[in-house]
Amino acid sequence: MASGGIYDHHLPQTAANYIPLTPISFLERTADIYPHRTSVVYGKRHYTWAATHSRALALASALRRRDIGTGDTVAILSANIPEMFEAHFGVPMSGAVLNAINVRLDSDTIRFILGHGEAKALIVDPELAPVAREALDGLDANILVIDIEDPSFIPDDPNSISRIGSLTYEELLIEGDATQPPVRPENEWDAIALNYTSGTTGNPKGVVYHHRGAYLNALQMVLDWDLPTSAVYLWTLPMFHCNGWCFPWALAARAGTSVCLRQVRSDKIFDLIRTEKVTHFCGAPIVLNLLVNAPPEEKTGIEHRVATMTAGAAPPSTVIEGMEAMGFDVTHVYGLTETYGPVTLCAWQGDLWDAEEPAKRAALKARQGVRGHMLEGLMVANPETLKPVPRDGRTIGEVFLRGNNVMKGYLKNPATTEEAFMGNWFHSGDLAVWHEDGYVQIKDRSKDVIISGGENISSIEVEDVLYRHPDVLEVAVVAKLDEKWGEVPCAFITLAEGATTSVDQLFNYCRDNMAHFKVPKHIVFGLLPKTSTGKIQKYVLRKRAEEVC
Amino acid sequence: MASGGIYDHHLPQTAANYIPLTPISFLERTADIYPHRTSVVYGKRHYTWAATHSRALALASALRRRDIGTGDTVAILSANIPEMFEAHFGVPMSGAVLNAINVRLDSDTIRFILGHGEAKALIVDPELAPVAREALDGLDANILVIDIEDPSFIPDDPNSISRIGSLTYEELLIEGDATQPPVRPENEWDAIALNYTSGTTGNPKGVVYHHRGAYLNALQMVLDWDLPTSAVYLWTLPMFHCNGWCFPWALAARAGTSVCLRQVRSDKIFDLIRTEKVTHFCGAPIVLNLLVNAPPEEKTGIEHRVATMTAGAAPPSTVIEGMEAMGFDVTHVYGLTETYGPVTLCAWQGDLWDAEEPAKRAALKARQGVRGHMLEGLMVANPETLKPVPRDGRTIGEVFLRGNNVMKGYLKNPATTEEAFMGNWFHSGDLAVWHEDGYVQIKDRSKDVIISGGENISSIEVEDVLYRHPDVLEVAVVAKLDEKWGEVPCAFITLAEGATTSVDQLFNYCRDNMAHFKVPKHIVFGLLPKTSTGKIQKYVLRKRAEEVC
Repeated sequence: MASGGIYDHHLPQTAANYIPLTPISFLERTADIYPHRTSVVYGKRHYTWAATHSRALALASALRRRDIGTGDTVAILSANIPEMFEAHFGVPMSGAVLNAINVRLDSDTIRFILGHGEAKALIVDPELAPVAREALDGLDANILVIDIEDPSFIPDDPNSISRIGSLTYEELLIEGDATQPPVRPENEWDAIALNYTSGTTGNPKGVVYHHRGAYLNALQMVLDWDLPTSAVYLWTLPMFHCNGWCFPWALAARAGTSVCLRQVRSDKIFDLIRTEKVTHFCGAPIVLNLLVNAPPEEKTGIEHRVATMTAGAAPPSTVIEGMEAMGFDVTHVYGLTETYGPVTLCAWQGDLWDAEEPAKRAALKARQGVRGHMLEGLMVANPETLKPVPRDGRTIGEVFLRGNNVMKGYLKNPATTEEAFMGNWFHSGDLAVWHEDGYVQIKDRSKDVIISGGENISSIEVEDVLYRHPDVLEVAVVAKLDEKWGEVPCAFITLAEGATTSVDQLFNYCRDNMAHFKVPKHIVFGLLPKTSTGKIQKYVLRKRAEEVC
Repeated sequence: MASGGIYDHHLPQTAANYIPLTPISFLERTADIYPHRTSVVYGKRHYTWAATHSRALALASALRRRDIGTGDTVAILSANIPEMFEAHFGVPMSGAVLNAINVRLDSDTIRFILGHGEAKALIVDPELAPVAREALDGLDANILVIDIEDPSFIPDDPNSISRIGSLTYEELLIEGDATQPPVRPENEWDAIALNYTSGTTGNPKGVVYHHRGAYLNALQMVLDWDLPTSAVYLWTLPMFHCNGWCFPWALAARAGTSVCLRQVRSDKIFDLIRTEKVTHFCGAPIVLNLLVNAPPEEKTGIEHRVATMTAGAAPPSTVIEGMEAMGFDVTHVYGLTETYGPVTLCAWQGDLWDAEEPAKRAALKARQGVRGHMLEGLMVANPETLKPVPRDGRTIGEVFLRGNNVMKGYLKNPATTEEAFMGNWFHSGDLAVWHEDGYVQIKDRSKDVIISGGENISSIEVEDVLYRHPDVLEVAVVAKLDEKWGEVPCAFITLAEGATTSVDQLFNYCRDNMAHFKVPKHIVFGLLPKTSTGKIQKYVLRKRAEEVC
């Protein structure tokens, strides 16, 4: 507390002037002031902020009555529906930590996550019941499984299971008492969420967020985007991605409306933009691409401006141009699971850039940019010395970040946590150049992550699966640029002596052994280029991949 | 750090993921990203954010070279000019605490403040040099006095002094090294500013702000007002008032432009709104009143919307109506020196209120409202029991506040600090009713503060001066509503036996012995109503005051 001199004394923190920062405050304030405004819309379901608050309180109370609370993990496997939104408040309000799991993962990975995070409860969307059941089978843990019911969901396979738990979400809410006050963090450094990153080496890592960071990054989203009070936000970005970039909390801070949708389809998106008067949405470049290339008849009748925030693989300039030609304002941001979602943005220099040609404007905007409002430090530097690279737009270095919206650390992984924070900067693992104007542009990923349709794919993970095939001698998987997906995995394989496996057989093998989005789109047989020390030269393969049709 | 369970361990704070909150970050980020945007305009002087940053760094460095830094107080007595704005950054960046003094105070009070705050330096505007010299005379302290030069300032009296210090502000800056990094707070709870409130009992109290609160309340101003990036803000609100409601820091967060002006005159205000394209300004109701009643020719040629934030005595509905009729959007807020400026706002319920008649809309807006984004608690309650009053719009209670934007405490005044935070709520001393919709409306001031032209006047202080006149036996000063000033002091006096002093003589006596704005506008002779225990019944006098012409 020392600030020296006469200010040193007699002014301790009290509950009147020091309250741990938490996004729970946003919900409480908005429910208090705008109880009748619409919080969530999902098809014919409409909730007010009073209702969302009350349901979150009931969820928190019900979890605690079942002895789930402070320091426990509550996992959720769900599409972007109201229950997923509510869980972002109700779970922390029980004192527990929310673990929103990527719904595109295979059951093995989900099982690993549930085990590693020691989930005490799992809330399951009917669409995800089959994979959740597989994940739970063979998991040696006592997990309370809660089924979300969604009458609007019609499974492709009418025989697929949709109920796997011991009670439904609505039954759980009824067990709760919405008049009970929520648990608030004793310390703003307490955990609020757990998000697994695929990383690149083997098992996913559990990134821990704290209340302080969630509060501040939610505000960063508001400020970076000038998100106004009562914004209408369309949920095209999965909430399992860094807690939807903290937007559930940001929308609570702004008394905004969340428009939910289960499937990201262009007709549905345009329809909701039109009917619900959506003002804002986020999405990977692939979502933008989907909209740009949608049939013209889907796009008619939208009279208002719509703001889009995009991140992931840098959006091709053509996509940015296409979006802006449609009357959508695109904000390009960049971040990682470890940073609560986006922490840099390509801040628009209106006075300098407005007059540029559309192509040049799009190229400027395709850069990852500068630090967001809450990021305290951003640099491109030599990963060994941490010495910043020159701002010449050419010298490649690693992106380093610092701020209150950098994760608390990796769960049960002190060594990797320490490594990630070495030298008091967070090591992003992304390679970039630094432009003269201070804008960062990512050029490559030091860890070879492939970003496909907004999803991170670990090349090493795909390689591991292929390496398990008896006919595969050596394999290297790299990213190949793709107009639709941003990037796709491309596998270069050396077959074992005398092997007869075909490319098609290997495709099938991949489909049986990994999530579909991870399956390489191209498989190429041949010898792999290596350094003198025998290390595979991925940069050579990346160039080759661009020549593959 | 305990959050229990598996989250307990191994995730300590590092400099990569924990940085004390401070508004210094806002300046650094904006100077980094928008170096060429205009930070401050004052007549023909224009500064960019790079220049403001550099000048603030030079100020910080120069102060430290003169051994002024962490834990020291640097006072400033200045109109709203660029140096005053810069001091809000440069002083904290030296580690010192900024004490911006009310320029309307008399020299005795300024002397008390300089002594109590133990100022090591005083920065003085040429217009304030005469009163500063008087204050310094007879002050037994070694204070570095720094003169601001302002060629655009022409004193009424050509013989009045404008230089009283040992060097000029620009000379001081030259001593500094703008390449030296600023001092950042070790702890966000460290003091950043000291603001004296007149209070009501005797000497002013020194309210201490910390970096965390300044950071958060600046953001609250942005969020409460939906203040956009690159807002153009006109400085009609004195920066010595709660550090201009934290707007110097809020504008740094938004890369906004500060348009300075020395005198609050309607022609000048309309002129700047027109020429500088001002989008936002704050002011007491009296400033709004000035604009509403300005000659029509001053108002022509303003094509854009202008947002106004007002606080102080509740603005008369007619003023709100008048402003809105002129095309100005009025946001009504409320706060105290102890809360970094405004912390409640009359949040507009667009969907419910838009359709009301103008008079009804203005009446709704004249209420002090609900909590701002960063305020964690607001209630109207019984001051003894802290039990909330019913939300009936009739029962009077005291306003209680809680949040990270409540002061650190009163300097060198632990007993009063403890009293102010009794029961873990900040006791505002303001009396209010609580409406059914949760909106607070202030009805009276328990401590009899009179708010005249946005200035707090302590009735007891005025009484004390009058009590010193030999002919005055008893005196009670109360607020009288006034169309122009909001409230004015009205003094009820019982003369001593055989006294012959006239009302006019007493007016003159007041003018000689207190700041002019504190001089009662009405003096009434007669007996004072008292309770059975001999206490003067001010509520009776308040009613009588309304009948005085």
